Amino acid sequence: MSFIHVSPESHFPIQNLPYGVFSTGDNDQPRIGVAIGDQILDLSVVGHLFDGPILKKKQNVFKKKSLNKFMGLGREAWKEARNTLKFLLSSDQPVLRDDASLRTKAFVPQDQAQMHVPAKIGDYTDFYSSKNHAYNVGVMFRGPDNALMPNWTHLPVGYHGRSSSVVISGTPIHRPSGQIRPDESQPPIFSTCKLFDFELEMAFFTGPATNLGEAVPIDKAQDHIFGAVMMNDWSARDIQKWEYVPLGPFLSKNLGTSISPWVVTMDALQPFLVDNTEQDPEPLPYLNHKDNFNFDIDLEVTLKGDEMSTPAVISKSNFKYMYWTMKQQLTHHTVTGCNLNPGDLMGSGTISGPTPDSYGSMLELCWKGTKLVDLGNGITRRFLQDGDEVTFTGHCQGEGYKIGFGTCTGKVLPAIPTEQIKK
Amino acid sequence: MSFIHVSPESHFPIQNLPYGVFSTGDNDQPRIGVAIGDQILDLSVVGHLFDGPILKKKQNVFKKKSLNKFMGLGREAWKEARNTLKFLLSSDQPVLRDDASLRTKAFVPQDQAQMHVPAKIGDYTDFYSSKNHAYNVGVMFRGPDNALMPNWTHLPVGYHGRSSSVVISGTPIHRPSGQIRPDESQPPIFSTCKLFDFELEMAFFTGPATNLGEAVPIDKAQDHIFGAVMMNDWSARDIQKWEYVPLGPFLSKNLGTSISPWVVTMDALQPFLVDNTEQDPEPLPYLNHKDNFNFDIDLEVTLKGDEMSTPAVISKSNFKYMYWTMKQQLTHHTVTGCNLNPGDLMGSGTISGPTPDSYGSMLELCWKGTKLVDLGNGITRRFLQDGDEVTFTGHCQGEGYKIGFGTCTGKVLPAIPTEQIKK
Repeated sequence: MSFIHVSPESHFPIQNLPYGVFSTGDNDQPRIGVAIGDQILDLSVVGHLFDGPILKKKQNVFKKKSLNKFMGLGREAWKEARNTLKFLLSSDQPVLRDDASLRTKAFVPQDQAQMHVPAKIGDYTDFYSSKNHAYNVGVMFRGPDNALMPNWTHLPVGYHGRSSSVVISGTPIHRPSGQIRPDESQPPIFSTCKLFDFELEMAFFTGPATNLGEAVPIDKAQDHIFGAVMMNDWSARDIQKWEYVPLGPFLSKNLGTSISPWVVTMDALQPFLVDNTEQDPEPLPYLNHKDNFNFDIDLEVTLKGDEMSTPAVISKSNFKYMYWTMKQQLTHHTVTGCNLNPGDLMGSGTISGPTPDSYGSMLELCWKGTKLVDLGNGITRRFLQDGDEVTFTGHCQGEGYKIGFGTCTGKVLPAIPTEQIKK
Repeated sequence: MSFIHVSPESHFPIQNLPYGVFSTGDNDQPRIGVAIGDQILDLSVVGHLFDGPILKKKQNVFKKKSLNKFMGLGREAWKEARNTLKFLLSSDQPVLRDDASLRTKAFVPQDQAQMHVPAKIGDYTDFYSSKNHAYNVGVMFRGPDNALMPNWTHLPVGYHGRSSSVVISGTPIHRPSGQIRPDESQPPIFSTCKLFDFELEMAFFTGPATNLGEAVPIDKAQDHIFGAVMMNDWSARDIQKWEYVPLGPFLSKNLGTSISPWVVTMDALQPFLVDNTEQDPEPLPYLNHKDNFNFDIDLEVTLKGDEMSTPAVISKSNFKYMYWTMKQQLTHHTVTGCNLNPGDLMGSGTISGPTPDSYGSMLELCWKGTKLVDLGNGITRRFLQDGDEVTFTGHCQGEGYKIGFGTCTGKVLPAIPTEQIKK
């Protein structure tokens, strides 16, 4: 369908067309691109070809260093851009296909590009919207009778995260040091984190801005959801346990959050809509929507220790296990009047499926340290060790094609020596 | 000391020189200014006069629409700028005093200026560092025996807030609507907030950026603290009570946070250093500093209802009641590796003094609704009513002069009708 060759296993056929921000060795200026096969179409080079009624006056959005301005244009502009991209990349359209000079400038092999965080993230919010995950953590810490807090089935619980430490896939993460209290009969100590973990999440970027004081009704929520990425919300469980009352997780999470570089649009995900999870009790009217807004996205987590030659699959899950939808998250976020800006990031919270092989964190996979996670060849883990590389992949399976998210990966580096800070 | 007249009661003598961002009716471009008396010195006009060794090559920072670039230059640059400003504004220096043409362009009366949020706030964090406040809230919700959580005296508890909804003093705030559960035997309901509150806080802006993975040692923390403002962290207590477990306050706080427009530098506050609050137990070494970093700043809260002709003083407090210092907050924030950017905002948390007339929120002043707050003339309050205007003022009292923060004010508007969102 495209004149660019796309292998059947590629995450980036012409049906996908995700947006990212990249730079290259010979041009270190970050710029907007679209993934197609193993190539990137550089929109800073072909922006002038977006000549639809909306974008012909807004072509400057493709000259920016981030996607925020484009995200801010809204759904009609996003659809127009997608149609233009499909046209330009189509095997039967000569505009780009037959212009050898333009093609040379406009395409960059993905393996020669450095990817960047695709938007300047003004605010990052993380939800807690997988019921299996919330239940598992609740059982571990409070027992099965009080596993879910009373509010959990009434609203999508969420909290504000740290946007400065959202990094692009591939960025290594140092094991953090901080305050923990391993022995509750003793005072807390300063220590390297002993219970370092990943969290399998997805996250969406927001679209047009809203005003302070105005809520987004649920039937308008989709207008503000641009597209999605995979996200690893690295977590220091021992630091979290000691610090989190009563105001929530803080330093245990703000040490780094990795996202995959390609933002898959909601239009590309549309064919993979599936039934929403049944919600009991029925949500209050402001959160209630009957149309499907749940997505069948296969997710997989691998772990490769320094002592391993190949990664081991440690979890197979699916985004469809989410309880609260992205629309419900977005509307809830604004209901007291909080304003949104283009490029805000909203995470799903750890996604865990119903079975132990589909859990989205080491905390659950090793059930609070009581089980070993088998990596093959006699290698096991409870929590993450230095040198461990954690990789998420995700895709929707179409008929003969995949809508993929690429990978979200990061390696755990040893803690930075802290003699100076400990004194 | 300045050729600009400064009344003895002014918050902005030449000893202060706080920075802000303003625009005017005839020039709507936001630009950086310094308050002196009832005037603003427009640094976009006099930036070329900063000819010290650091700033002569960095004069472009004074042409920006926000203070971030200047904040990012660091303490030596801040000191140089302060010295240059003192020189330029001094009554015995002719450079500006005797240049009538330049003076006409360079000074704007404060009452003709519109103030703006002084920095583009990448991330906003709020701490919980007043022991009196934490104890009061704890007594109300858990009783006196468990008032403070076990971690409270070991670390400065904090959480990430919403930066998009930080607004400048004077911005009205709509009463929020959201999910509350007034009757615990019944399901939650959607309602306007019935327990709307202010929080008396101060906040500091950060200086030079740090790298992800690197902690700021406590003896370097001051290098990253630019200056301070007053802050009102508007809070919806009924929404907060229902939503905050287990991840902390979210929608009850992100509906709006007001800050005063003039950033008072740490150099201006230096003469008002007082002993730190005694900390027991002694903090871990990474949080331990022996030098004073507590400040004697008088704070006052007034409330003026629509039915009142003059505001009533409802609290008199002081910043010196803080338990954790700004240095401890900043170092703790980075200890797991969280990176800072210039212009991050870090709030103190509600500041309450030891006596009931020094409490920093209606929640405490009305003791969870059990007492009436007397506004005079038979007028009383428990929580805030529509039309109530809450104003903070703050200053340090020098010998014959004040280092003031101006005011932080905001009026409560009725809730926006939510028929559409309730359906």
